[in-house]
Amino acid sequence: MRIGMIGTGTVGATIATKLVELAHEVKMGARAAANEKAAAWVEAAGAGASAGTFADAASFGELVFNCTAGVHSLDALAAAGEENLAGKILVDVANPLDFSRGMPPALSVCNTDSLGEQIQRAHPDARVVKALNTMNAAVMTNPVGGVVFVCGDDADAKGEVTQLLGMFGWPPERVVDLGGIDAARGTEMYLPLWLSLWGALGSPDFNIAIVGRP
Amino acid sequence: MRIGMIGTGTVGATIATKLVELAHEVKMGARAAANEKAAAWVEAAGAGASAGTFADAASFGELVFNCTAGVHSLDALAAAGEENLAGKILVDVANPLDFSRGMPPALSVCNTDSLGEQIQRAHPDARVVKALNTMNAAVMTNPVGGVVFVCGDDADAKGEVTQLLGMFGWPPERVVDLGGIDAARGTEMYLPLWLSLWGALGSPDFNIAIVGRP
Repeated sequence: MRIGMIGTGTVGATIATKLVELAHEVKMGARAAANEKAAAWVEAAGAGASAGTFADAASFGELVFNCTAGVHSLDALAAAGEENLAGKILVDVANPLDFSRGMPPALSVCNTDSLGEQIQRAHPDARVVKALNTMNAAVMTNPVGGVVFVCGDDADAKGEVTQLLGMFGWPPERVVDLGGIDAARGTEMYLPLWLSLWGALGSPDFNIAIVGRP
Repeated sequence: MRIGMIGTGTVGATIATKLVELAHEVKMGARAAANEKAAAWVEAAGAGASAGTFADAASFGELVFNCTAGVHSLDALAAAGEENLAGKILVDVANPLDFSRGMPPALSVCNTDSLGEQIQRAHPDARVVKALNTMNAAVMTNPVGGVVFVCGDDADAKGEVTQLLGMFGWPPERVVDLGGIDAARGTEMYLPLWLSLWGALGSPDFNIAIVGRP
């Protein structure tokens, strides 16, 4: 499959590398076509990897990942172009963490709205699936156990993302469907607890599992 | 130990019953001294159980639990009286869920503040420990596995609460200390995800465990 990657950071590079390993063609998009991080990733990832602008990546992909920093996601996806995202699955991995007022970061949107919902509203013809935003990049494509959450308004899109997550190492029984895209509020608002846990555990390479009465 | 219970709902009654079973003396406090739910609880719980006003309960307790609905907690604790809470451990189990605008509830405080911090600021001489607010009442005193979080600015208070949690069925290795009371933001902001999980799992009798690389 041809996949567009919006974002050149650690999350984008980690997922893009995994997708290339899985024999997908991936175009990594940046604000400008000439981007050092994207070029370095293409060099390292090898065959199947290419780079371009946000719009190039979105146009190229049959499926698109948003892995930008959450406070820049709406701008980056606007640059990617509504017409290049229409009808496509848009996997939103971003968290709206605002580091501008120091640590710990606050969320730039939460409680009665979420970044996932904002993206779906800004791109009504895209099929937004929020996923993978509750863990560190290294855990996304190399799971340590526990669960991964998906939510979105398009059931078929969630099904396709669940298949893709299977190839990342997440069996279907560990993919938890939380419902519509408004459930992104919950997965994004988990981030402050996740950041506290990172501090308490001394490592970001953890995840949460669900336990209950048998 | 003598324990004051602020709140007569399911959470308060569940914890108060467990405390009486553990041979503690518990006074359940309500807004008015004559409260049907508190009276019914005293009748059911038997020896060691008594009831009174919020101030009666706080005055009685060597340790006090806040199990009121979060949007009413500050009022209830003001009625309990700063002088009746001074120097005491105040275990805050409440979540600031605002059901007034329908389901799912939003949080009445979050992101850059939390109910736990508001309570600590309103009662600077109390030793506030946020705990047990990330699970259903039935799971608090009858654990299904997973972890319970504690946070607060007084390390000795967290240690005493950890001992009490041990008597509820939480061994020390499953009590995760998240740091100061500002970490209450994370455990309270987990509630929207918890509510989504309740919907996805079809039962509130679950908890989260931490998994990581060995």
